[in-house]
Amino acid sequence: MTVEINCDMGEGYGLYKLANDEELMGFITAANVACGFHASDPVIMHKTVLLAQQYGVKVGAHPSYPDKQGFGRRFIELSCEELRSDLIYQIGALKGFLETLNMPLNHIKPHGALYGRAAVDEDTANVLCDVALKFKVPVYGMSGTVLERACRQHEVEFVAEFYADLDYGDKGQLIITREHHHIDPEQVREKMERVLHDGTVSSINGVVIPVTVQSICIHSDTPNAKEIGLAVSQTVNNYQHNKSVL
Amino acid sequence: MTVEINCDMGEGYGLYKLANDEELMGFITAANVACGFHASDPVIMHKTVLLAQQYGVKVGAHPSYPDKQGFGRRFIELSCEELRSDLIYQIGALKGFLETLNMPLNHIKPHGALYGRAAVDEDTANVLCDVALKFKVPVYGMSGTVLERACRQHEVEFVAEFYADLDYGDKGQLIITREHHHIDPEQVREKMERVLHDGTVSSINGVVIPVTVQSICIHSDTPNAKEIGLAVSQTVNNYQHNKSVL
Amino acid sequence: MTVEINCDMGEGYGLYKLANDEELMGFITAANVACGFHASDPVIMHKTVLLAQQYGVKVGAHPSYPDKQGFGRRFIELSCEELRSDLIYQIGALKGFLETLNMPLNHIKPHGALYGRAAVDEDTANVLCDVALKFKVPVYGMSGTVLERACRQHEVEFVAEFYADLDYGDKGQLIITREHHHIDPEQVREKMERVLHDGTVSSINGVVIPVTVQSICIHSDTPNAKEIGLAVSQTVNNYQHNKSVL
Amino acid sequence: MTVEINCDMGEGYGLYKLANDEELMGFITAANVACGFHASDPVIMHKTVLLAQQYGVKVGAHPSYPDKQGFGRRFIELSCEELRSDLIYQIGALKGFLETLNMPLNHIKPHGALYGRAAVDEDTANVLCDVALKFKVPVYGMSGTVLERACRQHEVEFVAEFYADLDYGDKGQLIITREHHHIDPEQVREKMERVLHDGTVSSINGVVIPVTVQSICIHSDTPNAKEIGLAVSQTVNNYQHNKSVL
Repeated sequence: MTVEINCDMGEGYGLYKLANDEELMGFITAANVACGFHASDPVIMHKTVLLAQQYGVKVGAHPSYPDKQGFGRRFIELSCEELRSDLIYQIGALKGFLETLNMPLNHIKPHGALYGRAAVDEDTANVLCDVALKFKVPVYGMSGTVLERACRQHEVEFVAEFYADLDYGDKGQLIITREHHHIDPEQVREKMERVLHDGTVSSINGVVIPVTVQSICIHSDTPNAKEIGLAVSQTVNNYQHNKSVL
Repeated sequence: MTVEINCDMGEGYGLYKLANDEELMGFITAANVACGFHASDPVIMHKTVLLAQQYGVKVGAHPSYPDKQGFGRRFIELSCEELRSDLIYQIGALKGFLETLNMPLNHIKPHGALYGRAAVDEDTANVLCDVALKFKVPVYGMSGTVLERACRQHEVEFVAEFYADLDYGDKGQLIITREHHHIDPEQVREKMERVLHDGTVSSINGVVIPVTVQSICIHSDTPNAKEIGLAVSQTVNNYQHNKSVL
Repeated sequence: MTVEINCDMGEGYGLYKLANDEELMGFITAANVACGFHASDPVIMHKTVLLAQQYGVKVGAHPSYPDKQGFGRRFIELSCEELRSDLIYQIGALKGFLETLNMPLNHIKPHGALYGRAAVDEDTANVLCDVALKFKVPVYGMSGTVLERACRQHEVEFVAEFYADLDYGDKGQLIITREHHHIDPEQVREKMERVLHDGTVSSINGVVIPVTVQSICIHSDTPNAKEIGLAVSQTVNNYQHNKSVL
Repeated sequence: MTVEINCDMGEGYGLYKLANDEELMGFITAANVACGFHASDPVIMHKTVLLAQQYGVKVGAHPSYPDKQGFGRRFIELSCEELRSDLIYQIGALKGFLETLNMPLNHIKPHGALYGRAAVDEDTANVLCDVALKFKVPVYGMSGTVLERACRQHEVEFVAEFYADLDYGDKGQLIITREHHHIDPEQVREKMERVLHDGTVSSINGVVIPVTVQSICIHSDTPNAKEIGLAVSQTVNNYQHNKSVL
């Protein structure tokens, strides 16, 4: 089984840039492409999908609550009907660009406050599963969450993510920060090797936490994102090369 | 050959209603569904596509300039790249809803200021053709326009529209009004019979104008839209019944 | 002391109409004017303020969470800083129109989900008070709420509202419905006379509830809004005439 | 008479940053603050106005066509009524923040496509004058334009701008570029001294053009904006110091 590396992509808007997408494309295998609700616009989506195609990177949808001003990080109380339609709209829009380039949709990964909500709220998780079933793609998320359980129930393929560039709390929860800081690439290599070989990560307080890793997530707005991308990519490639040799 | 009847549908927004879509669904064969740029939102798009399915009505995309406040009736100076991406985004979003209901996309009909611009501007017409080719669907428009010519050049199927509820000027141009007024259904019947049998319409000054009619367009926000819908539908049905008998 | 009658006004958007504002202007003394976040746009705000001026109606701001699609009825998790700035922006925009017409700002009445949140959440209520202090105007709301308490603490003038066209629950809470239904004007007259003379209202289960009434709120989207406006206006006028005679 | 230095400020949006406003505040005397239509949001406006206050910088409104995706650089065909209301809304919103800080509005400077349109279109120029009269503030623009003429006619104070960091064409028109490039600060110093002492600027082809200079405009998104800000500020200060000594 192959370990994927995914990254949120295309999160600029109009004239605004958030990160240098191109410098990370060479290190990842799957791009979560923003769909215009928390970031991006049609021109940026078009360019991002083209860029992914050039680099042979698979494209998934990265839908959000409708909140560009808050970058999708503010909870909005949507009805299930509203959420379902908002998801189909965003995923459909992305599939429009994919269709013009003969590319398939690879997965769905909810963004920001929606990602957090789906991890704890059954209604939200069920709507995501319902939509994923209709588009016949897997859902990315954290293992041990309500979303993972909902996927098992609805027979939606679930891909467990590991965050290479974020810290974990003692209960396995992610420590989310507003801004991403510079990270030591050596620490990332150690963290990656441990999680790939032992399936564990050390929390900020040193608690050993078992984690499932099917896809590694990295962030393009980490100040030294390229360095981290390289570190993660090399560790994963070495690991897979060694496994295939054995 | 069958004469279609098309109507713009799903043009409410949030709590706002523009017209009673359901009362016209029974009279039409193709719905031009708003895609969220001049009107509509994901919930309304979802409902409109479902309604069309129930009535056996084909669904086309009705994309617009990004201008909800102006209902897509204000020209915006987009680059070709911006227009192309805006079109793919809107059409893709609509196809998302269609995909979840196993329905095909039937056509593209540009809305408002974009419809007017495509009739006279080559760049705009070419971008529309380009996008229609990618989605493999015909484009609806007025015959004799730059858009029709561009379709011929790009080998995009062009469907010539006749407006049952609008007046024509002496050069065959449509007389567009901000608000649609009550229309005498008997006059509509006469106008329809003439255009179906003779292929002509009388301008507001009595000039006889030859017109090509492949699809009849009616508007849901005409005050007596239901009555007009019935008149158009009956005239077309009678005409086609008689033709098939012969 | 005069009893006011207030009504939400200017809640259309672009081409969309929600209610016939003009037919109610003659019955009210204060208009809560939408500021573009849940409804309205600059053109409608301009017209609404002009209409209020013509009818000698005072103008207050009716700010909302930023949510046109949900008509401001969906809770959005804003920080205090975001809410404060959103309020100042909306109120300032309305004051822009008032300034060009030499009209003062009369009050602030939060809309929809923000109105509901301010009634129960201290942070929200405090931000509203803070902003009202800066603009030196009173806040409208339900008596017995966290908002009223916050106003007392911050020495912001609080105007207690009574809803003539909505039902009350047994604990004095409003029964909010998605759509407003036709109401019997005779029942409204009785309800109004009782509240003006006895300061009580009967809940939907017949429980007698004491209420403070400084401003009566009516809704323009009640199907027979004009009839209800007349009933409320006449009852209030009779009551005040009788009081002044005594 | 004092020569001002103005700069567009507060042009980020949500999480997105466009430039480092703070590093230029020390070099300018007037900030043109974006009002949320082409850039900015209430939180950013609030912070920008506070920053201007800290640095003793005067604040003007920088209104735009409603087009965040296009950064206000795309022409939109607004009616005069729409433009007038859009301007009052934006200026009013900014005045809201100014009012809470006891600061006056200093001027109006239209942004992007609206700036360009006002320079050549009478209707647009007249609407701007009309609004400036209502708010009793001057308008900033290029001398020799339709806007300047309209200001003279309407008796609106007009402040002629000189662009320190843009090139001029042979007819005195600005050479607008999508992105601003690194500029040699020594060339800027020479250009500034010449324009301050001789009232002329050399076009890209060496044509000597007479220019009126009441306010110098610099851009915060020039890569070495701080260096340019320092150069302009020092040249202006030296010039004024020498003049006052004489």
